Amino acid sequence: MLDLVFRPDRSRPEPIYRQLGDYLRGLIEADRLPRGGKLPATRELAAALGLSRNTVSQAYEALLAEGLLTAHVGQGTFVAPQAGPARPAAPLPRATRGFVWSGLFAHRARALAVPGGLRGIRPGGTPRFDFRGGQVADDALPLGDLQRAFGDALRRHLKDVARFQHPLGWPALREEIARYLVGRGIACTAAEVAVVNGAQQAIDLVTRVLVDPGDTVVMEQPGYFGAAMAFGSAQANLVGVGVDDEGLRTDELARVLRTRRAKLVYTTPAAQSPTGVVLSEARRRELLALADEHQVPVLEDDYDSELRYDGPIVAPLKCADPAGQVIYTGTFSKMLFPGLRVGYVVAAPPLLEKLALARWNADVTTSALPQAALALLLARGGLERHLRRVRRVYAARLAAMLAALERAMPAGTRWTRPRGGHTVWIGFPPGLDSDAVFRDAHRAGVAYATGELFHFDGRGHEHASLSFANLPPAAIAEGVALLGGIVRRHLPRAERRTS
Amino acid sequence: MLDLVFRPDRSRPEPIYRQLGDYLRGLIEADRLPRGGKLPATRELAAALGLSRNTVSQAYEALLAEGLLTAHVGQGTFVAPQAGPARPAAPLPRATRGFVWSGLFAHRARALAVPGGLRGIRPGGTPRFDFRGGQVADDALPLGDLQRAFGDALRRHLKDVARFQHPLGWPALREEIARYLVGRGIACTAAEVAVVNGAQQAIDLVTRVLVDPGDTVVMEQPGYFGAAMAFGSAQANLVGVGVDDEGLRTDELARVLRTRRAKLVYTTPAAQSPTGVVLSEARRRELLALADEHQVPVLEDDYDSELRYDGPIVAPLKCADPAGQVIYTGTFSKMLFPGLRVGYVVAAPPLLEKLALARWNADVTTSALPQAALALLLARGGLERHLRRVRRVYAARLAAMLAALERAMPAGTRWTRPRGGHTVWIGFPPGLDSDAVFRDAHRAGVAYATGELFHFDGRGHEHASLSFANLPPAAIAEGVALLGGIVRRHLPRAERRTS
Repeated sequence: MLDLVFRPDRSRPEPIYRQLGDYLRGLIEADRLPRGGKLPATRELAAALGLSRNTVSQAYEALLAEGLLTAHVGQGTFVAPQAGPARPAAPLPRATRGFVWSGLFAHRARALAVPGGLRGIRPGGTPRFDFRGGQVADDALPLGDLQRAFGDALRRHLKDVARFQHPLGWPALREEIARYLVGRGIACTAAEVAVVNGAQQAIDLVTRVLVDPGDTVVMEQPGYFGAAMAFGSAQANLVGVGVDDEGLRTDELARVLRTRRAKLVYTTPAAQSPTGVVLSEARRRELLALADEHQVPVLEDDYDSELRYDGPIVAPLKCADPAGQVIYTGTFSKMLFPGLRVGYVVAAPPLLEKLALARWNADVTTSALPQAALALLLARGGLERHLRRVRRVYAARLAAMLAALERAMPAGTRWTRPRGGHTVWIGFPPGLDSDAVFRDAHRAGVAYATGELFHFDGRGHEHASLSFANLPPAAIAEGVALLGGIVRRHLPRAERRTS
Repeated sequence: MLDLVFRPDRSRPEPIYRQLGDYLRGLIEADRLPRGGKLPATRELAAALGLSRNTVSQAYEALLAEGLLTAHVGQGTFVAPQAGPARPAAPLPRATRGFVWSGLFAHRARALAVPGGLRGIRPGGTPRFDFRGGQVADDALPLGDLQRAFGDALRRHLKDVARFQHPLGWPALREEIARYLVGRGIACTAAEVAVVNGAQQAIDLVTRVLVDPGDTVVMEQPGYFGAAMAFGSAQANLVGVGVDDEGLRTDELARVLRTRRAKLVYTTPAAQSPTGVVLSEARRRELLALADEHQVPVLEDDYDSELRYDGPIVAPLKCADPAGQVIYTGTFSKMLFPGLRVGYVVAAPPLLEKLALARWNADVTTSALPQAALALLLARGGLERHLRRVRRVYAARLAAMLAALERAMPAGTRWTRPRGGHTVWIGFPPGLDSDAVFRDAHRAGVAYATGELFHFDGRGHEHASLSFANLPPAAIAEGVALLGGIVRRHLPRAERRTS
């Protein structure tokens, strides 16, 4: 009998048969069980190890399936004569030297970067006061509705979601999105809607289809870093247009479009990212007129439009686009939650056909079960119900943040007063060492995104973006008070005295 | 009182309050309810329409949330004075002319195409005999295990999956994948594993990070069309290397690598796509030695490796890669089902860091719930159980297909005898009009992928790829018999007499 010393660890998540299987596999691969040798009968081994016979059988079966064991009726179970899946018959050669990747990266991959690295956006750590963007109110998730929608989708559609899906998405979800958008004033049918993995994928796919290296792309500055990253990695020539209280400055846009042929204008009119400013009516008209005059497509990123806390929700540019010049994208990441990874694009048919190919090329299609669940949630009115609730939640948090900034920040600090979205855009007093503020804030448990993240030209140093989405009002007050104290400590001496 | 004629349609999936809301929205948008006008009290309207008061309240609330109605305590509900979200205050200008997209597509987007369009791969229609690729055995899905895994993931992790995820994936799934791969002989830790939306995304991300326009990429020919598409859309200079009974021809590869600097070699060694041939031991050694000699990275697409029906599963090239020169990708699309859209990449740290940025740029990360469910399924041994079952299912289907081809095809037809995977690669008799065969087969309800799909240079005309994955043996026999008859009818006259 083989000398097996195996002790199950019942605190581990894997079932015991699996632990036993791993143990046996290790012995076989280390050549401690002879190839072709016979294993004890399940009854024997079970008795020797104090396990149930069923556990031993399951372990054997798993290794049989892997080809590490063989079974012969009436004879028993043997270690396979071959080395099994893990080892080829003869050892493969070892590379003679280490492999150096750095010289191999594509030129276009050099622009695959965000200012400051993924520091401001990559989730990680659990800061006490997490003002980083991309979050939603964890404590206001529609858990019940989601659980019902996923559960029902699973029961009704599991066989369908298992199948290969159309690159443009789950038909019932395309229908629901079209219906939802028609309700927002966008004349479209399900055939014009593509489901994507969030707005970021929409931006990337549009870039792949329209932008060649050297092409001019115009975007707001400060602006959404994910868009800048996509355009940059396509080696576009990025041109920034300023933002003021009415949103994107159309006078600057007019100057840019007069002097160069742009391939695309990217904009976030509903709640400019990161300032939260709403593009005014007059500017909307000017923007569309300029796009028409210069025959340049507009990519409208409507990511946050439903999160509006005063006044009516602004109609998307896409509502006034009979020629199909506006490419419209939105996402459920902010309206529901980011882990879902479902968004949508509305585009004119010739463009949509190209986007479908680009989508196939990128990753074929969106995972089907989340799509099916979302279709049910929308059909049942769960999105509207949720938005009604979170608008109140976010309005209270925004108010708390604005009040806290008023109390905590020294003179010379400015900030936007958004009427929607999740973030406030801060301008620190001139001359402040914002790197030192960021480091001290990090140490004190206050996390936020630095202004550089929203600039593609190295500016933004004196700015920060604070999301109020995922902290209750009291925590917002406390975190902003902490940050205010740190800012004061780092003021240039002259300012410190007067503030 | 307003003249409202609303009839609920109880056969429709939307709840009645939603139908009522849609109806009222339509009236408001058509200006048939005056702006600022008062609506009837919910009690009144409910009585007039024969609905419950609750239904009317819900409809009102939805329109309130949209900003189409306003409510004043003690006064009642009114049509909003503003036009609401669907209409801006003043009409936006209409574009003066239609928008022409065709001239705007990027040069790189021209290569966004597959031979014959998405015809062979886009799901659609319900042919009686569907031999198209990308499918799995619908009738052998592990429905129970999947339902339990998704249900448990939902109950345990809904709050976590709602959050923004790390671009490289759900930690528990990265752990499970690493454990699974270690079991297959690949020395890796969770930190070296990235979760992606299937192998296609892995190919695309690697391409973005490594391939500049004009760079040489070497791949098998015939080869996987999704890879050719990704390399083509990156404007790579694609060089094909032939395939014989031992897999990729390393003598041809040696000639190619001697004469030009390649950026990447793409290969499917476990079951060459589309021929199903397994790369021999000798060729594996030669391939790795060549890659080492020329310091060129190898992208190993191990998409089908577990579906092996005789002999041991072959060890991946990645097992013999101490220098980290092999980029390894696999997917659960074939092992479980394609609608899941979950795959993985193992790459050396400097490359993985770049891939994480490329991933963020592409679509941030993979939807979290499918990842959490899959982690549970793997931890519970559900994958091994399923593979054990489907290997038997597919072995029987492969045998049925080979027998049917033997019976049905005229002399001069050749086909591969795969020992794994899902497809058989057919070579029609010389001189056959394969377009006519495809058309007639389509009419007779027999769908398959034409050989052109697997060639990037216009060849492949005389070939076809038939998947046996999703038809029971009897249907395989019947469908292949039909196809055989059609092939015979289209033989050149001379051949027809002798076959």
